[in-house]
Amino acid sequence: MNYIIILAGGIGSRFWPLSRQMQPKQFLNLCSSKPMIDECLENISGLVGLDKVYVATNSLHGKKIGQCLNKFAIPRENILLEPQGKNTLAPIALLTQRIYSHDKKAKIIILPCDHFVADKGRFIKKLKRGLKLTDNGYILTLGFTPKRPETGYGYIKAGLGRRDYYLVDKFVEKPDIKTARRYLKDKRYYWNAGIFIFRADAFLDELKVIKPQVYRIIANIKNENGMRRYWKGLPNISIDYAIMEKTKKAALLPADYGWIDLGSWQAIEEIAKKDRSGNILRGRCLDLGSRNILSWSDDRLVATVGLKDIIIVDTKDALLVCAKDKAQEVKKLVCRLKQGNYERQI
Amino acid sequence: MNYIIILAGGIGSRFWPLSRQMQPKQFLNLCSSKPMIDECLENISGLVGLDKVYVATNSLHGKKIGQCLNKFAIPRENILLEPQGKNTLAPIALLTQRIYSHDKKAKIIILPCDHFVADKGRFIKKLKRGLKLTDNGYILTLGFTPKRPETGYGYIKAGLGRRDYYLVDKFVEKPDIKTARRYLKDKRYYWNAGIFIFRADAFLDELKVIKPQVYRIIANIKNENGMRRYWKGLPNISIDYAIMEKTKKAALLPADYGWIDLGSWQAIEEIAKKDRSGNILRGRCLDLGSRNILSWSDDRLVATVGLKDIIIVDTKDALLVCAKDKAQEVKKLVCRLKQGNYERQI
Repeated sequence: MNYIIILAGGIGSRFWPLSRQMQPKQFLNLCSSKPMIDECLENISGLVGLDKVYVATNSLHGKKIGQCLNKFAIPRENILLEPQGKNTLAPIALLTQRIYSHDKKAKIIILPCDHFVADKGRFIKKLKRGLKLTDNGYILTLGFTPKRPETGYGYIKAGLGRRDYYLVDKFVEKPDIKTARRYLKDKRYYWNAGIFIFRADAFLDELKVIKPQVYRIIANIKNENGMRRYWKGLPNISIDYAIMEKTKKAALLPADYGWIDLGSWQAIEEIAKKDRSGNILRGRCLDLGSRNILSWSDDRLVATVGLKDIIIVDTKDALLVCAKDKAQEVKKLVCRLKQGNYERQI
Repeated sequence: MNYIIILAGGIGSRFWPLSRQMQPKQFLNLCSSKPMIDECLENISGLVGLDKVYVATNSLHGKKIGQCLNKFAIPRENILLEPQGKNTLAPIALLTQRIYSHDKKAKIIILPCDHFVADKGRFIKKLKRGLKLTDNGYILTLGFTPKRPETGYGYIKAGLGRRDYYLVDKFVEKPDIKTARRYLKDKRYYWNAGIFIFRADAFLDELKVIKPQVYRIIANIKNENGMRRYWKGLPNISIDYAIMEKTKKAALLPADYGWIDLGSWQAIEEIAKKDRSGNILRGRCLDLGSRNILSWSDDRLVATVGLKDIIIVDTKDALLVCAKDKAQEVKKLVCRLKQGNYERQI
């Protein structure tokens, strides 16, 4: 059978001040009138039964995610509440093992919940194709053709070509701008979207060889009690770094369904409608002569004059004004809130 | 005797959102911990007795100015409450006539209340020198040596030189940037600060000849009743345009006591202390890598990232984010508030 594991663990602090520790990005209406987690679940409807959908999230947000998943009738036991965030390997390994324990032929899609999908039809088609390809034992990763010299994503370099996919030559970390420009010209580099498709047994075989300690720990986590006892011993590491960069089974499936990673405020401009001056004004906004700004008001009047390439996000107790090309730095800013005695705004 | 007329009529809408219709600029603590009107009155203390200080303001702000002037023991009858704003000629003419009616030898200083004075000693000295010069019947105007190609001020061109003053060649309106650059190089141009010094009789003589209708109307305004009846008939015109540009008695007294016209948010940066990156951060502000910004928070957390030459003013119910070189446009923005259904924020 086919399964989907949705990764909904992070805070998305780059969306501060809208995102907060107790109101992470997946519950925000960033792309539409619906929370991102709802969008994500609607996107995959029809691909697998809802009892085959698993969700990993931080235990801080257990209640919120529970309410949300109730709407979609996803079984409560399909939710993994992580006592601490451990990056992606730990939840993927644990849920894969759990699925495998009752379905030895399980095929699994790993899907981060914070992606915007422009063309749902092509998205579903691509995932189906991926599921099919796992028959060969590949651990597939989706790759998107770069559209700009993006320094915020990791890249995958395609190796030997097969029919409509490639063996992976290598994974590369977030590049500097010069390198990113080179990748853009070179046709062999793809954006790494963090979407994986594999047969549970193929993944677990690799895990056993490459990360035997992780394999042993997750085998011990059989219930809440095991979770409390052993979770903390799992390494804080991504599946990319731990498995994908090391396995020989990695394959790259190019995709082009209009994928947008909602990584920072800057991503909103790829989705939202702009006025003739390139501005996105949401809420009670009044502008005089600005260009290419994002002005986002929760409630108060936000008046802007003569700005260019600026992001403004206004909430009840905190305001962000940020240069567009510095949108990635918002994460750093949130770290500073602690030092600056602004705990209530975190 | 010597008198001072303080002009405290405007709203100062360029300081929106801090300035509001019912909270005009003169009551704001822009330069220090004190309201500007208090600063102004402290600056002139010692120059004339407080019973010789007159204040013209809009009747909307009568109560507020009354409370303020109580502190300084200025007689209530010295306050002119204008039923409608009429620019500067009307209040100056009316108060000059009122002073003249009981003191035929009165000398008067006209002082806008929204100026920052860096060197109080030199300021007083210069005004005293001006009072002395009025013996010759001049209508004096103070002129400041331009420090930048300012397009927000009017200019005065000096004519024939006398000892430490000049006859006025001409007054010129706010120039475009090219002209302003030329004025900056040409040593004969001075900034027009709207500060005038004259003998009451000399001014009234000129008024009688140049604006006989105004002269007749103010002669009719002898009490509250006359005010209600005749004020509305006075023209909406500045003293510069109505009298100074036409009289042959105009003289220019150069001054250099560190005068700053608090005309817009941009002026604050000439006064306020900056950090090493040239930023002025007031209130609960947290910055990451910005340069030359003004971030002004009434209460909420204002977080800024990577900005340059931006003004941010955050108040309870409205926020302004403005390019520094567009600070003059804030006035236009306030006009737009009406159209945009933001009456409560005006």
